[in-house]
Amino acid sequence: MLDNKENPLTSLEKLGEFGLIDHLTQSIQIAQESTQTGVGDDAAVLNFDGLQTVVSTDMLVEGVHFNLAYVPLKHLGYKSVVVNLSDIYAMNAVPTQILVSIAVSNRFSLEAIEEIYEGIKIACKRYNVDLVGGDTTSSQSGLVLSITAIGQAKTEDLCYRNGANANDLLVVSGDLGGAYLGLQVLERENEVFKANPNMQPSLEEYEYIVGRQLKPEAGKHIVELLAELEVKPTSMIDVSDGLSSEILHLSKQSGYGFKIYEEKIPLDPMVIKTAEEFGINPITCALNGGEDYELLFTISQSDFPKIKGNPNLTVIGHTTEQNADNYLILNGSESAVPLTAQGWTSF
Amino acid sequence: MLDNKENPLTSLEKLGEFGLIDHLTQSIQIAQESTQTGVGDDAAVLNFDGLQTVVSTDMLVEGVHFNLAYVPLKHLGYKSVVVNLSDIYAMNAVPTQILVSIAVSNRFSLEAIEEIYEGIKIACKRYNVDLVGGDTTSSQSGLVLSITAIGQAKTEDLCYRNGANANDLLVVSGDLGGAYLGLQVLERENEVFKANPNMQPSLEEYEYIVGRQLKPEAGKHIVELLAELEVKPTSMIDVSDGLSSEILHLSKQSGYGFKIYEEKIPLDPMVIKTAEEFGINPITCALNGGEDYELLFTISQSDFPKIKGNPNLTVIGHTTEQNADNYLILNGSESAVPLTAQGWTSF
Repeated sequence: MLDNKENPLTSLEKLGEFGLIDHLTQSIQIAQESTQTGVGDDAAVLNFDGLQTVVSTDMLVEGVHFNLAYVPLKHLGYKSVVVNLSDIYAMNAVPTQILVSIAVSNRFSLEAIEEIYEGIKIACKRYNVDLVGGDTTSSQSGLVLSITAIGQAKTEDLCYRNGANANDLLVVSGDLGGAYLGLQVLERENEVFKANPNMQPSLEEYEYIVGRQLKPEAGKHIVELLAELEVKPTSMIDVSDGLSSEILHLSKQSGYGFKIYEEKIPLDPMVIKTAEEFGINPITCALNGGEDYELLFTISQSDFPKIKGNPNLTVIGHTTEQNADNYLILNGSESAVPLTAQGWTSF
Repeated sequence: MLDNKENPLTSLEKLGEFGLIDHLTQSIQIAQESTQTGVGDDAAVLNFDGLQTVVSTDMLVEGVHFNLAYVPLKHLGYKSVVVNLSDIYAMNAVPTQILVSIAVSNRFSLEAIEEIYEGIKIACKRYNVDLVGGDTTSSQSGLVLSITAIGQAKTEDLCYRNGANANDLLVVSGDLGGAYLGLQVLERENEVFKANPNMQPSLEEYEYIVGRQLKPEAGKHIVELLAELEVKPTSMIDVSDGLSSEILHLSKQSGYGFKIYEEKIPLDPMVIKTAEEFGINPITCALNGGEDYELLFTISQSDFPKIKGNPNLTVIGHTTEQNADNYLILNGSESAVPLTAQGWTSF
């Protein structure tokens, strides 16, 4: 049915994730007065008389987003909620409800699904959101989780991806690259285990980065911190695909180029040590690894004194000119490397 | 990882869909003031200052909910939206936005996904809803669609599943059993085609029921009709799993028993003819077939004059007493058959 067309077909591999999204969404039209922002930001914004309602959805697929050989089901449930809430926080909004759909094959027992739900409920409690609906169905193979998060914000608090101005500072919360390296450790231990099932995985010394991969947290504390500091970012996004890719989003939507500095990118000592062990540049992990779920945002230079010295926030660069390219300035040099998007290429 | 527990595991097969949902949702707690109704109705109801926001989500899995051997991708996209909107209409609300997540394996081309989106967009236009977000990802095998619909209603217009009162009339829109028989025809023609690929399927004479299966419509016209007639149902649900199962939902949630009459159940002549061809009782198709996406609701007897004689609405029974069982009264007799839930048993 799919193969008997006469024209040659476009492969998804060639298009890539962002190309596909652009392609599929370019002709979407908005008809409802209440739809303030649709596709194209971390979450849609709906205006229902007064407070803004923010919604976002994400799908996690077995074998693509997680491997049950080393991801405990409870962690999976927790993470699936967190990655959605992260999109709501990236709007500078507060998540209030989620809906959860799960497809499972008959190789899963009730207890297995309960484990997933247990993680979901822990996340709901941690982030004070209500699970208000969903769907549970069977699949022929594999586990699929689809979560929709809904949140609220005052109109004046919302942060979009397109708001950066000339000479804004680029700020990131926490540190980067850990989730990617945590995954490398888990995959390596899994290979060891497959080769010799009597070997127990040695994960203790990698606790921080393995935790970043298995049980990430969303930017609740950062949104609260920004409110406390009275800093309203001019634009914001969460780091799900990697720093590089997120900067390109902010750049494309604002029209400004960005310059970031290698020496400023926040790295945990364990990230540096583990990257060395794997023979990778830790900066590459930060730029292209993804899944750190930190918040990346721009602020006006006049807000710099408010965030200066805060251990949770690092200024890593700034916007340049309109329509300029995006660059990484290498340590101790004037060399500039163009930033390129990786995203996922699992097609 | 899932098999090394000491306690025997509960099979999902034994539990069934509704048992699983009850089990998983029984301990969910509501923390947000804005969550008016969470899990347990066709859609959750959120109260964001003023208008009620209604959200609902559904997942469609290849090989479980559809077979791409005979479901055109455009129809699949259309139907996946319609089944979600149906849940919003079943609240007597108006859908306003949807979010769409799709997981596809690399056997799908861009054109294939475009076909799905084309159907989604046609449905959005037909029902005047905005596609405001989503996620597109890869899967290792098969196609999964997950859609969340958001809608609005005035507080006083919302219809829940639990509102039926003693001696209310039970009303269904349109006719029943067609979608199930349409599926039987499609599956039969697919078997014929597999046996002899040169055979062309003969679907013309089954156009109505095949259309009911491949391109169902949600109850927009019924919700509009009820507003026009100034009838506010006391409870409402959409017929997704079959008449029997939906009546049991209304009964369980209201606490009243229901009695329905075989002779009153609306059947299209093609449903009767095709059921005969397949050697099935057409009433069984209506009771257990599902996927008709008609609206089933209760009204006060005092509203009967307003709907009397309307060709879109049929009174098929009534509530009886509190805590009473649910019965089908057979044609020309006093015999009463207890109604039992089938739901899907695909686990």
